[in-house]
Amino acid sequence: MTIYLDHAATTPLRREVLDAMLPLLTETFGNPSSAHAPGRKARAALDEAHETVAGCIGAEPREIIFTSGGTEASNLAIKGAAWAGKATGNHLITSAVEHHATLHTVRHLEKFGFEVTILPVDRYGRIDPDHLADAITDRTILVSFMQANNEVGTVQPIGELVARAREHRNVLVHLDAVQAAPYLPIDVAALDVDLLSLGAHKFEGPKGSGALYLRHGTTILAQQQGGTQERHRRAGTENVAGTVGLATAFRLCCNEREAAMPQLARLRDRLRDAVLAVPGVELTGHPRERLAGHLSVVASETDGETVTLSLDLEGIACSTGSACTSGSTEPSHVLSAMGYPDEEARGALRLTLGRTTTAEEIERASSIVPDVLRRMKSASAAVAADPLGEAVLS
Amino acid sequence: MTIYLDHAATTPLRREVLDAMLPLLTETFGNPSSAHAPGRKARAALDEAHETVAGCIGAEPREIIFTSGGTEASNLAIKGAAWAGKATGNHLITSAVEHHATLHTVRHLEKFGFEVTILPVDRYGRIDPDHLADAITDRTILVSFMQANNEVGTVQPIGELVARAREHRNVLVHLDAVQAAPYLPIDVAALDVDLLSLGAHKFEGPKGSGALYLRHGTTILAQQQGGTQERHRRAGTENVAGTVGLATAFRLCCNEREAAMPQLARLRDRLRDAVLAVPGVELTGHPRERLAGHLSVVASETDGETVTLSLDLEGIACSTGSACTSGSTEPSHVLSAMGYPDEEARGALRLTLGRTTTAEEIERASSIVPDVLRRMKSASAAVAADPLGEAVLS
Repeated sequence: MTIYLDHAATTPLRREVLDAMLPLLTETFGNPSSAHAPGRKARAALDEAHETVAGCIGAEPREIIFTSGGTEASNLAIKGAAWAGKATGNHLITSAVEHHATLHTVRHLEKFGFEVTILPVDRYGRIDPDHLADAITDRTILVSFMQANNEVGTVQPIGELVARAREHRNVLVHLDAVQAAPYLPIDVAALDVDLLSLGAHKFEGPKGSGALYLRHGTTILAQQQGGTQERHRRAGTENVAGTVGLATAFRLCCNEREAAMPQLARLRDRLRDAVLAVPGVELTGHPRERLAGHLSVVASETDGETVTLSLDLEGIACSTGSACTSGSTEPSHVLSAMGYPDEEARGALRLTLGRTTTAEEIERASSIVPDVLRRMKSASAAVAADPLGEAVLS
Repeated sequence: MTIYLDHAATTPLRREVLDAMLPLLTETFGNPSSAHAPGRKARAALDEAHETVAGCIGAEPREIIFTSGGTEASNLAIKGAAWAGKATGNHLITSAVEHHATLHTVRHLEKFGFEVTILPVDRYGRIDPDHLADAITDRTILVSFMQANNEVGTVQPIGELVARAREHRNVLVHLDAVQAAPYLPIDVAALDVDLLSLGAHKFEGPKGSGALYLRHGTTILAQQQGGTQERHRRAGTENVAGTVGLATAFRLCCNEREAAMPQLARLRDRLRDAVLAVPGVELTGHPRERLAGHLSVVASETDGETVTLSLDLEGIACSTGSACTSGSTEPSHVLSAMGYPDEEARGALRLTLGRTTTAEEIERASSIVPDVLRRMKSASAAVAADPLGEAVLS
């Protein structure tokens, strides 16, 4: 059995979630926009999903817009707010460690006359609230940042960042909570954000399903035109099963999260201690202000791609960083922004735990991962000492 | 048991489709962008879905972009082609009977400097190819029309329309095949189109899953930014289960379509003859060039909303027109464009059959629907004769 330690990339669908989805994939198949009985049943399920998600984050049901995933939610938040705010200003602020769903979106908007400030981060990946305060101008209409980083698990100083943005009346705040949602509580009133993105498959919900919280009274320009679904804010026949799956998974996640985190952090710490015991391995991201299930390191004299492939052969599924940029030969933009030179960033390894991760799995991983790292390092040292492989040939 | 005659709004998920999706909702849960074994399994399923859909329409796998549905596919086709063609021209042509996923999208683009020509249609909802030829200018970059209409089932004269567009080198052709796909063969080479939209839930696939065919060598501007998924043309973790569901449903649909149409048309004709026997009921859309499962009428002196509600109480699920515009008090833009005054369009009724519709259901519907229409008409006549209801009160 594979030990799955890539929960930041995606999570297995939870059994209760599939059970909640199945009726929507069988008998309750109506189009929620249809007035007849099959349509009304689907509509009721969709309405309930709005209520559930809203209830989990202290919002109203009408403040929830269902989307096809976290990426669409962030695209809709950023583009929607940018275009709606065009009359007021054209300046957007985000950070250098955001997910590409944010960074590529603001770069896309630059082609349409928007100006973008990308805030730097410190060695741990944190934004300095003073940098944010300094960057805001009277043309700024949107600030967008992650609650926690997907590659290194660092939690941003949300309270301070939002407080600085709130000193300016015209600035909307979008929080990308896609990676944080399985681990951190989300209360939109306490967070005081205008927009917040979620992706179901990060918290044991289905792929292809996300949600955007949009504070009542906040105007965005819809990014997908067509029917009148989601109160004219997101056209297209609703993915009812996916939406119910998201709502069910999120409800379970929110109900159990607080109680589950200490054990998850203990397992993560056990693995962290084992991995950091290997010489030349260094934690990336914040040592304390990080997601409970998240371990990320750089291992000197190793190549993350090779390490993850070796671990895959040993039955451990993990990654070098974001799955969304895998296949790219570029070093991680997150580690670069945190000041890691390419040579160090090349040795990145990310091990992320989830609700279903067991103590036994972590025990095994705590033996296998350090072994593989040591083997890689000694192989690398051997190549360095004998670059032409003559010792082997002779 | 409800007799479901609203297959144009949505279809029940086919059992074989759910069976194909279930492994992707359980054990094969990896992120297709992950390099490890669980990721590679998901990637293989996604690759196969590309191959399957491509094979069904005579395309190459890389020419298929999976989306969150037909609406997103049409949005991506139209906006993507419009923005990519901006250097060449800014003129878009479509017709007055398109789905709102097209009409609202081109209206949206007007705000960004695009010019739009909306072609009229005849009494049957057909575009005159000469009108298209006359409308094309040297600034025209895109022509977008439906293979068949969702409200009245009329099939467009695709061959002639495409031929006129093809006289101009810079004009791309987008075909909205969302409604037609369950009924008409689709071969992109024979159709000679550059872009073609599909929505899974119209052919017994899951909601929240669609596809865009994009001819190799045709450039569009991606409309959702983020990861590198779908060859950089559609960011966001792929809805693997939904995609496999679409592919499975489409394969079955394409394999069985030709053989199934004669019987479907016979059932539709049986129902049509029964409904048209009611005085004052008139077929809408083309009498012959229409989708096999599609019956649409206007019934004088009735209100379509009231008729469908009465039929719902009698156990027949149908609609007045598009589900995507239900709840709107506006008369159908399709019937208006076809020259029906509001008063006539108000009496619209749409009955759409699918693969699972049985002869027995149609026998029952052929009795119930005319009965309800007659009852409505006599109630309407009674109200007209005695508008204050005095006969009842006395």
